[in-house]
Amino acid sequence: MGDASIPLRLHPSGKTIRAEPGVPLIEALANAGIILDAPCGGEGVCGKCRVIVREGAAAPLAAERRLLSEAELKAGVRLACQTKAVRPARIEVPELSRLAEFHQILSGAPNHHRSTAIDAAIRKQHVELAAPSRDDDASDAARLERAIGPFEADLRVLGSLPGRLREARFCGTAVLAEDRLLDFEPGDTRGQSFAVAVDIGTTTLAAALVDLVSGEELAVATQLNPQTRFGDDVLTRIQMAAGDGGLARLQASVLEAVDRLIESLAASAGIQRGEIYEVAFAGNTTMQHLLCRLDPRCLGEVPFVPAVRTALRFPARELPLKIHPSGRVYVLPVIGGFVGGDTVAGMLTTDLADQPGPTLLVDVGTNGEIVLSAHGKLSAAAAAAGPAFEGARITHGMRACAGAIERVTFDGTLAIETIGRAAPLGLCGSALIDLAAILLDFQVISPEGRFRRSSDLPPGTPDDIRQRVSDDPQNRAFLLVPVEQSAAGQAIVLNQRDIRQLQLASGAIRTGIELLLSRAGIEPGQVAALYLAGGFGNYIRRAKARRIGLIPPSIPGDRIRYCGNTSLAGARLALLSREKRREAERLAARTMHIDLAADPQFQWTFADAMIFPSGDQ
Amino acid sequence: MGDASIPLRLHPSGKTIRAEPGVPLIEALANAGIILDAPCGGEGVCGKCRVIVREGAAAPLAAERRLLSEAELKAGVRLACQTKAVRPARIEVPELSRLAEFHQILSGAPNHHRSTAIDAAIRKQHVELAAPSRDDDASDAARLERAIGPFEADLRVLGSLPGRLREARFCGTAVLAEDRLLDFEPGDTRGQSFAVAVDIGTTTLAAALVDLVSGEELAVATQLNPQTRFGDDVLTRIQMAAGDGGLARLQASVLEAVDRLIESLAASAGIQRGEIYEVAFAGNTTMQHLLCRLDPRCLGEVPFVPAVRTALRFPARELPLKIHPSGRVYVLPVIGGFVGGDTVAGMLTTDLADQPGPTLLVDVGTNGEIVLSAHGKLSAAAAAAGPAFEGARITHGMRACAGAIERVTFDGTLAIETIGRAAPLGLCGSALIDLAAILLDFQVISPEGRFRRSSDLPPGTPDDIRQRVSDDPQNRAFLLVPVEQSAAGQAIVLNQRDIRQLQLASGAIRTGIELLLSRAGIEPGQVAALYLAGGFGNYIRRAKARRIGLIPPSIPGDRIRYCGNTSLAGARLALLSREKRREAERLAARTMHIDLAADPQFQWTFADAMIFPSGDQ
Repeated sequence: MGDASIPLRLHPSGKTIRAEPGVPLIEALANAGIILDAPCGGEGVCGKCRVIVREGAAAPLAAERRLLSEAELKAGVRLACQTKAVRPARIEVPELSRLAEFHQILSGAPNHHRSTAIDAAIRKQHVELAAPSRDDDASDAARLERAIGPFEADLRVLGSLPGRLREARFCGTAVLAEDRLLDFEPGDTRGQSFAVAVDIGTTTLAAALVDLVSGEELAVATQLNPQTRFGDDVLTRIQMAAGDGGLARLQASVLEAVDRLIESLAASAGIQRGEIYEVAFAGNTTMQHLLCRLDPRCLGEVPFVPAVRTALRFPARELPLKIHPSGRVYVLPVIGGFVGGDTVAGMLTTDLADQPGPTLLVDVGTNGEIVLSAHGKLSAAAAAAGPAFEGARITHGMRACAGAIERVTFDGTLAIETIGRAAPLGLCGSALIDLAAILLDFQVISPEGRFRRSSDLPPGTPDDIRQRVSDDPQNRAFLLVPVEQSAAGQAIVLNQRDIRQLQLASGAIRTGIELLLSRAGIEPGQVAALYLAGGFGNYIRRAKARRIGLIPPSIPGDRIRYCGNTSLAGARLALLSREKRREAERLAARTMHIDLAADPQFQWTFADAMIFPSGDQ
Repeated sequence: MGDASIPLRLHPSGKTIRAEPGVPLIEALANAGIILDAPCGGEGVCGKCRVIVREGAAAPLAAERRLLSEAELKAGVRLACQTKAVRPARIEVPELSRLAEFHQILSGAPNHHRSTAIDAAIRKQHVELAAPSRDDDASDAARLERAIGPFEADLRVLGSLPGRLREARFCGTAVLAEDRLLDFEPGDTRGQSFAVAVDIGTTTLAAALVDLVSGEELAVATQLNPQTRFGDDVLTRIQMAAGDGGLARLQASVLEAVDRLIESLAASAGIQRGEIYEVAFAGNTTMQHLLCRLDPRCLGEVPFVPAVRTALRFPARELPLKIHPSGRVYVLPVIGGFVGGDTVAGMLTTDLADQPGPTLLVDVGTNGEIVLSAHGKLSAAAAAAGPAFEGARITHGMRACAGAIERVTFDGTLAIETIGRAAPLGLCGSALIDLAAILLDFQVISPEGRFRRSSDLPPGTPDDIRQRVSDDPQNRAFLLVPVEQSAAGQAIVLNQRDIRQLQLASGAIRTGIELLLSRAGIEPGQVAALYLAGGFGNYIRRAKARRIGLIPPSIPGDRIRYCGNTSLAGARLALLSREKRREAERLAARTMHIDLAADPQFQWTFADAMIFPSGDQ
């Protein structure tokens, strides 16, 4: 940090952080580990990254004048993506603007029919060696090899071996990753062996601390992918990576968050970072590229070629990650430019290739991935759903955190539930689907997605629906929460543009499902099972997902299964089983990667999929 | 190499080597890896080391006038052991003058009885790849693998592959080290591939730039090992390494010198450091440990256990060395705690294991190493000669650089020759041996190494000897250069303590030779050949070495062969041939490491070896 850096004192913690002059506060705060909500990618559009600058505020910019009231501006409220560090300042970050905590359930071992024996890549072997003597002057490496078999080792491990062996009086525990020696520890440490599984989502990171001896998950933690401040979708980041220093910044950004996750996992389980020997990562192809600083430029253009598809194994210090000094990284193999290690992890977790009937895996996220296993063949496609399901690009959308409406029901009157029972701030993906399904049922929106005027609603439409329909032809909308009940400072509505965003997101995934089935000659009704994956997947109500056509309505609802964060679960399997790693490689290699956009049927199918199903299915 | 060094341009290669002023051409050429046949040991007797000095020839000396015809002298023919580097010259080395055994792949000339094809670990392959298309969306790594076969690669290489392939428009040259991809270069760069061989001596570093395409040595350079400032012997450095930060300082010290050598080699050959893909190192076990920062603590105590004995291969950035960013390091395997990669390199260079009769390899340096190949078995031992042969621990000793007396002769009067024809500053190892031999011949010193009083000298002792013997009982000494002719500011003498140092150094090596022979049941007279290696080995006059008992006098003089810096030559072989690397591993593994000090005969043999031979052998 240069000498010209500017001190920013945080209220109420009293902590001072420093920022380079001209850096937007959102970045300065992110660098200090304080991640703000910015679904618009820091473009001054969503107005969510509010901070209060108590002293040293700069004059508000146009975007701030547009999104903030006069009273707010006077009180020092600013948008952290717009206002820049220009002079020493005192800053308060309202809890609401933070994204430190997520409401997300990480299921441990979902849908696991077959239990896998633990056969981790990291293994420990306790040995007692004879000390060197004039009759036995074998090198230290050869002495150890006599006991544990041939191994490879980095220079630093070989270099410290004389000291390690003697500190342990030649009686200790060899730590190996496959056939690579990582350490020689004094005493018998076989009971202590840990690893971390990480799901690198475009929006959210989730990590689990795994006990490699028992196979148990000792702790989990999640956090926002701080790369979101550079843009909420994959393509924006690919473009940024192409710029000068962009890739390095993106990598540093995600690594810093992974570092914090590891710190928090170790702290909550009461172990040392040095006892973590391996970290396994699963994410979409772009996230894995950014993590490993692999040039992602070709993921942004036809035909979306990854740098490498196979699994990666390398020293953790190459990223770097602060775990055991000789710790390792494993990154799952990918299927194609938009079907990544997270999908392979999902296939691994669900045993997708071994299911008896035609089976689908659908991972609903910023990028939706669909895999079909049928007749011994595997095919996969990516659907550019966009971040609507994560609350972005929806007028009052937000991520699934405290204050988010996560459920909307109608039982005579419209009712909402919020996360943390807080006053409502906006709606997250599951509520968006709920509400759209209700509006379709009451014909407030047509199958084509158009808002009807209240006067056009069928007779018998309940008052609590009819009264909420705005008839302003310039801005047709449905009132979900009136201003006086809202914590957002304004009414929470769903408008015509939001419905279009939902149609695009839902239609993209539906198109993927339909095209994969059609190519395999399978009717939706023949699907034996559909696994709904992704952190968000768990909150989607099946009936509603069918109602809005996210899932073909002809797939019976009872064949839809939730399987949670299979990306994280698959990364964990890769830590615990070398056989699962081999299987991941095989799955990635044999899965046919379908480029949906190149399918001649794509346009027609997509156009059809944008139409909401009629209500009688 | 000092700034005063003289350029010598070799014909017909066009290559330029550099020599210190006054150095005989045979030495300058040997330093550059061109070993001439000199069965007389460079004494101007056999006339075999003929070279043609096309420009810059010095006036012929007496020995040359005796052995060469007038027409030859006119044509510039000179004896390389007699004629010295005094001014820039153009030199042609006739094929006939070269020592056949050491050509092998080093020169690439056709008439070798055992030529090894170049099969370097670094290889280049030129490929034209199809650009990705919708029908062919293989990853960049897979695309390249289709053309060159499976490879491994570091993260940074994989990460930059998309950019490298596209900059080259998919048509370029893959650079591999074994099966590891180092780079993909635009265009066809197969003609440009370089590596550096380094001999890490305890006292001196020598490096050669090798063209991996032609096998030629493009430049050589030497420099003092800067670790000498921390102590001139191996044990001092091992002790220093055990202290806080000591190992890191020692490593940094030698790396800095290696860096300078690489810089100077690249500059003199006009290539970029980035075109150097590999560096091979050979040195004694401690030097190799210090280079790689392997904890050397156990090399300083019985039973002298190395951290590792096998060859090491690792990325150059781990040291770090500034060569190609993905460049590699190869370190030769070692035999034991005091018989290192330099000895293995010597065995490789001399084809020691394949010699028909019992053959010795003796490397005279700060640490002397002796290897015996006999009856299909190989045994090796180290002799702690100490630095006397490099001029250290001798009252007026010095290294072989300008001003050092390098030769002492007696032909009625005592005469000296200095390096660079400079005024004498002190005496280096070869002069020490010469002078001791003369003093033994005239009985100035007894076989036990005691100075005699001038009055006790036999009648007929020449005046120029008798007058130089000091009779001061407190400080018996022999005056080599009186103060008025000395550039050292004082008279240059050899005293009783110096003789003791010589006895220890010489006796140590002789003991090693005797014990190895004795264990194999071989009499010295049965030795078919003795290879005298090491930079210094070239300058020892065989008759004198036998006279002082460094070499058992019962080994006939004509069986002693000089083979130059075989450590450097062996490192070079390892760069050029993967088969030679495998052979090095096999040699290191099958050579029995003899701990001389543990031999019950050691004390007696050493005591005997300290006695100078009587003069009649």
